[in-house]
Amino acid sequence: MVDSAEATLKTLALELPSPPKALASYVPVQQVGELLYTSGVIPSWNGDVQFRGIVGADVSVKDAARAAEICALNIMALIRQHAGSLDRVEQFIQLSGFVRSAAGFEEQPKVLNGASDLIYKVFGERGRHTRQALGTSELPLGVPVEISAIIRLKP
Amino acid sequence: MVDSAEATLKTLALELPSPPKALASYVPVQQVGELLYTSGVIPSWNGDVQFRGIVGADVSVKDAARAAEICALNIMALIRQHAGSLDRVEQFIQLSGFVRSAAGFEEQPKVLNGASDLIYKVFGERGRHTRQALGTSELPLGVPVEISAIIRLKP
Amino acid sequence: MVDSAEATLKTLALELPSPPKALASYVPVQQVGELLYTSGVIPSWNGDVQFRGIVGADVSVKDAARAAEICALNIMALIRQHAGSLDRVEQFIQLSGFVRSAAGFEEQPKVLNGASDLIYKVFGERGRHTRQALGTSELPLGVPVEISAIIRLKP
Repeated sequence: MVDSAEATLKTLALELPSPPKALASYVPVQQVGELLYTSGVIPSWNGDVQFRGIVGADVSVKDAARAAEICALNIMALIRQHAGSLDRVEQFIQLSGFVRSAAGFEEQPKVLNGASDLIYKVFGERGRHTRQALGTSELPLGVPVEISAIIRLKP
Repeated sequence: MVDSAEATLKTLALELPSPPKALASYVPVQQVGELLYTSGVIPSWNGDVQFRGIVGADVSVKDAARAAEICALNIMALIRQHAGSLDRVEQFIQLSGFVRSAAGFEEQPKVLNGASDLIYKVFGERGRHTRQALGTSELPLGVPVEISAIIRLKP
Repeated sequence: MVDSAEATLKTLALELPSPPKALASYVPVQQVGELLYTSGVIPSWNGDVQFRGIVGADVSVKDAARAAEICALNIMALIRQHAGSLDRVEQFIQLSGFVRSAAGFEEQPKVLNGASDLIYKVFGERGRHTRQALGTSELPLGVPVEISAIIRLKP
């Protein structure tokens, strides 16, 4: 087995979007020591929002999981832009995921598995992260999912 | 005074649950340097959810604070499993706590004190952490509280 | 250009409130290595809550952005109290901001720009942080905004 996330991405025929841009006085990533912090990313592709709505009401769990996958691809795009290659990842440390939830919707973990499973597929053991899976009532631009990450880079 | 969280736990006659398991492509903890990150934990005991509902509606502040205590015990169980002993804790750094809140419910801090007070009781000064106390509308499995932690371990 | 946040604060004629106190078994800040973690701060001034309500309902975006500014000033007060001077800041790493949102309110980023823009004004490039901008239904004491920060200090 080749320990290359870039090679795996190619094998899976996965493309990355252009990395999300800062929209204000903040930046998409900050590195401190070996730790890379990302801003919260939303399910946009090259800047265009792909999903809007409330999971459990007008967005299905399946679509929301796809939205979470797109969030994960945006996080990968940020890593590649900042570090030059996905193969600079030593270990994913944490994902914080917020799911915009209809009243009584309890399956936030299923939604976020869209991101977690994809990251594990691409990075293998280096992709295994801790996770906060949370529901919320509202998110920016009306998106159904927002995710941020902490990643350890190789020295 | 003995600076031993394990001894204090015994004195308080507190038991820990079995540590929560990862439910998907994520892990319960990740360590980077001396910092231990936990996933979000819920008020379950050996895997069985102990509380469900909305605080300020069908869950009282008192019960929700007890749910937060159980979250803290699950965090301790993760620390002991990962590090071998609670006495490996150098300092609790941060708790992020989310309380599933009825409309107009403002006492999230009181609920989370269930966790904060217990951690302080067991760890003394090493238990003093920063805290994010947040309300939210929905949480996984319908639980009233979810908490994650960042802990500094001894070298 | 003088690289001094304290001097810039003076030029802007900005005052800081007295730093928020811990209300329970937690502390306002914890430092680990060069990283300073703050607890979540609310729009209070010397302990008095300045804004209450739901953004998009009884609180305007403009007032909520002012509330976020006050959160930022409280974070600065915590930094100065802990580190002696704002000039000890090497880099803002992350802001996590929660906006108590009316149903359908999507402009959490505009609200949090109140904090982000002010921090950039005072700290320049050292103030550029990653950001989680999140909506939620309820917050402690009924405030419209809560923000926490991770800051890297100079060695």
